[in-house]
Amino acid sequence: MEILIAKTAGFCYGVKRAIKLADQCAEADMAACTDGESSSGTYTLGPIIHNPQVVKKLEEKHIISKETLDDIEGGTVIIRSHGVRLDEFEEADARGLKIVDATCPFVKKAQELVSELAKDGYSVVVLGDHDHPEVQGLASYGGKGIRVVTSSAELVDMSKVKKIGIVAQTTQSMEALKDVTSICLGKAAEVKVYNTICNATSLRQTESVGLAERVDVMIVVGGKNSANTKRLAEICSTIQPKTYHIEVADELMDEWTDGSESVGITAGASTPRWVIEEVIDRIGAER
Amino acid sequence: MEILIAKTAGFCYGVKRAIKLADQCAEADMAACTDGESSSGTYTLGPIIHNPQVVKKLEEKHIISKETLDDIEGGTVIIRSHGVRLDEFEEADARGLKIVDATCPFVKKAQELVSELAKDGYSVVVLGDHDHPEVQGLASYGGKGIRVVTSSAELVDMSKVKKIGIVAQTTQSMEALKDVTSICLGKAAEVKVYNTICNATSLRQTESVGLAERVDVMIVVGGKNSANTKRLAEICSTIQPKTYHIEVADELMDEWTDGSESVGITAGASTPRWVIEEVIDRIGAER
Repeated sequence: MEILIAKTAGFCYGVKRAIKLADQCAEADMAACTDGESSSGTYTLGPIIHNPQVVKKLEEKHIISKETLDDIEGGTVIIRSHGVRLDEFEEADARGLKIVDATCPFVKKAQELVSELAKDGYSVVVLGDHDHPEVQGLASYGGKGIRVVTSSAELVDMSKVKKIGIVAQTTQSMEALKDVTSICLGKAAEVKVYNTICNATSLRQTESVGLAERVDVMIVVGGKNSANTKRLAEICSTIQPKTYHIEVADELMDEWTDGSESVGITAGASTPRWVIEEVIDRIGAER
Repeated sequence: MEILIAKTAGFCYGVKRAIKLADQCAEADMAACTDGESSSGTYTLGPIIHNPQVVKKLEEKHIISKETLDDIEGGTVIIRSHGVRLDEFEEADARGLKIVDATCPFVKKAQELVSELAKDGYSVVVLGDHDHPEVQGLASYGGKGIRVVTSSAELVDMSKVKKIGIVAQTTQSMEALKDVTSICLGKAAEVKVYNTICNATSLRQTESVGLAERVDVMIVVGGKNSANTKRLAEICSTIQPKTYHIEVADELMDEWTDGSESVGITAGASTPRWVIEEVIDRIGAER
């Protein structure tokens, strides 16, 4: 059985950077402890990335994920790769916490663009999943008038306005952004669109689709809470119905690959290399 | 035989305004002659609107259409409804001609937007017909880097740039603007679109399509050199193959309406009411 692995599988730039910053915090914390200083704790506000295995590894290094600022009494707070809401950021600062901003620079840029558009009087539309922390963060920079939509369908009833500014969640699809922009062109005489879709996401999607077309079985590895991994699995399954989304190697079932000549493996942006390697090893051992 | 006339047939706001300004010039000229002053001539740079019948009527009032500024030695120059190129405007001024600017305010606005986008560092794309005077005028405000396209197909090979600004010829279709915008979203991280399509055009098109669906024969009245009339005839003929584009009532052929129960009549933005009335009267007389 042939195993084909997507080159773009796994950590993107923003995730790598966040993990690196968290590791630096863990090292600094350990050095402080060695010097006899007492640590006031290092936390992440929400999981640093959407991968339970990585979050668990960080816990072993005493970096603890907390849901709200109320759960953090002092010390250092690491802002996760997806970013946080503006009010959370400001409150962390007001509480005197040491902030390590691990927000993905592409997400940070999108937050700044939302803020700029709102300041310049645009009615801001954010294309993204309502419940995703990145989107909630983005929306918080646009003030009260902001509108979050998961698709152009949610804009059909929008009243006409003077000018619309559009920003996308970094993991959205280009097609969805084009659709939203098209609808907005009928809603305002001026439409300013920032294509904030991250290249890494679309490259990974394109490569994975190409792989799904060539193999008998497709395995998508990544957090069940990872939006980009779920989307990757969705897209692959439209090409190859035998597509399976797993978080860890233990979930693999022998019958999935029985009689298959080739297996394709891809992984979301928040899936660490070692989790992917375990999946490759496990499938390889089955041969 | 039933005759149905589109409510939106004929002169749009910009054309009405241009004709009114030309008539005021003709009156002023006549008043001057009555007072014994010699007229230094009143001209339009290119036909004031794309309708030969109107141009002929103005000639009778001594307002002469000239192709270039070299043909005008002095006096007053009326800038036609479609506007002129920036260099022509400046040269007319430099030559000391009295300028009466009858550029449609919507076209003027589009010219200003092209200028503003170019000044703000956008790579400007104008959606429009290369040969149309309005488009040549618009393009002249965007400097050397400007790109005129008649459809999104002409942008496929465009290199990526930092930011793109889009302006449309006022008579373009919304679909074409959406297509061009979609392509541009893949060419730049920032795309600013001004929907400069004139509402009058789309309203006229929508009403005419509705009419074409209900009648046995469709008559589209307007200059053979009028882009918006030609487009109107094109759109109607996709709905009703028995669509005829005529400039004046004399072109009507009895056999077109023989055996028909209903005839629809629409007209371009540059078609005067009296030309439409003649067509209505002629068809009515056939009954």
